[in-house]
Amino acid sequence: MNLKPLSDRVVIKHLEAEEKTQSGIILTGTAKEKPQEAVVVAVGPGGVVDGQKVEMQVKVGDKVIYSKYAGTEVTLDKEEYVIVRQGDILAIVE
Amino acid sequence: MNLKPLSDRVVIKHLEAEEKTQSGIILTGTAKEKPQEAVVVAVGPGGVVDGQKVEMQVKVGDKVIYSKYAGTEVTLDKEEYVIVRQGDILAIVE
Amino acid sequence: MNLKPLSDRVVIKHLEAEEKTQSGIILTGTAKEKPQEAVVVAVGPGGVVDGQKVEMQVKVGDKVIYSKYAGTEVTLDKEEYVIVRQGDILAIVE
Amino acid sequence: MNLKPLSDRVVIKHLEAEEKTQSGIILTGTAKEKPQEAVVVAVGPGGVVDGQKVEMQVKVGDKVIYSKYAGTEVTLDKEEYVIVRQGDILAIVE
Amino acid sequence: MNLKPLSDRVVIKHLEAEEKTQSGIILTGTAKEKPQEAVVVAVGPGGVVDGQKVEMQVKVGDKVIYSKYAGTEVTLDKEEYVIVRQGDILAIVE
Amino acid sequence: MNLKPLSDRVVIKHLEAEEKTQSGIILTGTAKEKPQEAVVVAVGPGGVVDGQKVEMQVKVGDKVIYSKYAGTEVTLDKEEYVIVRQGDILAIVE
Amino acid sequence: MNLKPLSDRVVIKHLEAEEKTQSGIILTGTAKEKPQEAVVVAVGPGGVVDGQKVEMQVKVGDKVIYSKYAGTEVTLDKEEYVIVRQGDILAIVE
Repeated sequence: MNLKPLSDRVVIKHLEAEEKTQSGIILTGTAKEKPQEAVVVAVGPGGVVDGQKVEMQVKVGDKVIYSKYAGTEVTLDKEEYVIVRQGDILAIVE
Repeated sequence: MNLKPLSDRVVIKHLEAEEKTQSGIILTGTAKEKPQEAVVVAVGPGGVVDGQKVEMQVKVGDKVIYSKYAGTEVTLDKEEYVIVRQGDILAIVE
Repeated sequence: MNLKPLSDRVVIKHLEAEEKTQSGIILTGTAKEKPQEAVVVAVGPGGVVDGQKVEMQVKVGDKVIYSKYAGTEVTLDKEEYVIVRQGDILAIVE
Repeated sequence: MNLKPLSDRVVIKHLEAEEKTQSGIILTGTAKEKPQEAVVVAVGPGGVVDGQKVEMQVKVGDKVIYSKYAGTEVTLDKEEYVIVRQGDILAIVE
Repeated sequence: MNLKPLSDRVVIKHLEAEEKTQSGIILTGTAKEKPQEAVVVAVGPGGVVDGQKVEMQVKVGDKVIYSKYAGTEVTLDKEEYVIVRQGDILAIVE
Repeated sequence: MNLKPLSDRVVIKHLEAEEKTQSGIILTGTAKEKPQEAVVVAVGPGGVVDGQKVEMQVKVGDKVIYSKYAGTEVTLDKEEYVIVRQGDILAIVE
Repeated sequence: MNLKPLSDRVVIKHLEAEEKTQSGIILTGTAKEKPQEAVVVAVGPGGVVDGQKVEMQVKVGDKVIYSKYAGTEVTLDKEEYVIVRQGDILAIVE
């Protein structure tokens, strides 16, 4: 099962959740210090959004910081994702 | 009886409700984990909406995730539908 | 006495009220299940509304579903009408 | 003394108030049933309003229905008027 | 001392205040019946305001009616003025 | 140390504060009667702001009246300044 | 680890925090008098933002004053940053 975001939307996944899923160890301390960090899982096609041409600047695998109160949480196959607009992504962490 | 949405509107139907109607078995557990998933039942013609040209990107039968607080619930022939703008559809589930 | 709506406005009449007037029988059950259904009674000329060209897509006699909190209720010759913008009409019921 | 509205504004007068002034009889019942009906007393020149060209569609003497919470009440020579934008006039009553 | 308003702003002075200052008699009754009437004291140059070309339609000396909650009150040389945008002036009283 | 405002911003200084600083005498009465008067200390370059070309109409040394709730107060070298957009300056006092 | 802001965003760092980190001495007095001063740490590429071309006017190392309630606080490698839009930067301190 796969999420294909529309227009300028981006599907991201909290690093916190990922660490729990893969290692089984809950890294609470670390997780609390970077609650807005996430990894990009799927990127919409961009195009004309609200009458403005939007080019996508993030790609799958980017670690990003996003606006705290933005986005919609969705659960798919027991994994939690957040779908945000690209404009809610503040910065890429390199 | 049939719903023909205007402009960029999309008629969707909760998967939860559909499963109840067809099988008679209430799949509460599954349903609760994906409350924003729905299937597209009818798609508006698009065109110029609020002065912006809108092309429809979803089609009848698509499984979609939509914004939790968006849309208007309507009941027609005892079936419940939600009418949303295409912009409230976040992603297609494939 | 007649209502001639301005610009992109549409005068609609609740089916609930109509059924009461014509048959004298109050179909409460049915009425409660489709509270946003109405029939189009008069259609404005459209034209340029807020700087955007609007073409009217509904016509007198159409059964429509409209946005629950939209419109202004008016009483004329003891009949109740609702005046909405075309943008508040969600779908035509066929 | 005379009111000359600016841009797309329209000066209207409640029918309720008019009936009281001329006949001396207070027609409370009738007045309560059509609280948003008014007669056009003066019409602004239209022109470019908020960057959009506005043509005036009502004329002095038109009976109109207007949006309940719109407009500013003014008292001039002991007569009460309401000044609304043309966009707050919903329909002409013919 | 003189007020030179910027862009589409207009400096107005309540007739109520003026009458008090000049005659020393407080005309409370009259003043209460026309609280939004004022006389234009200074007019801004207009020009491009928020990306829209604005031409000034009022001139010094005009008696105007303005929107009740608009404008900023200022006191200069013990005289009280209100500075409003031209768009908050509803009508000229002739 | 110097403040160089960006785009259409203007740095102003309350006359009230200035009089206190220089003479050591607190002119409370006068100060209270003109709380929105200030003198321009620095002017931004203007240019394209929110997609609109803005030309600066005030200059350093102008006494201005500005909108009461606008602007951000900043303290630099123990002096208090307010940074406002030019659009929040209502009038120049001459 | 590095923050690369998107579009017109700017990563800034409170001077207060910096002084604490480097010297180990908490300069509370000074810090309290300039709470909105910060130093620019990273600057986005600008470009078309919300349909408007934005050119970046600040550069890494600039001391800036920014709008008090703007921005998102992020913690990266135990350092605290604020990510703001360039439009929330009021002035450069020279």
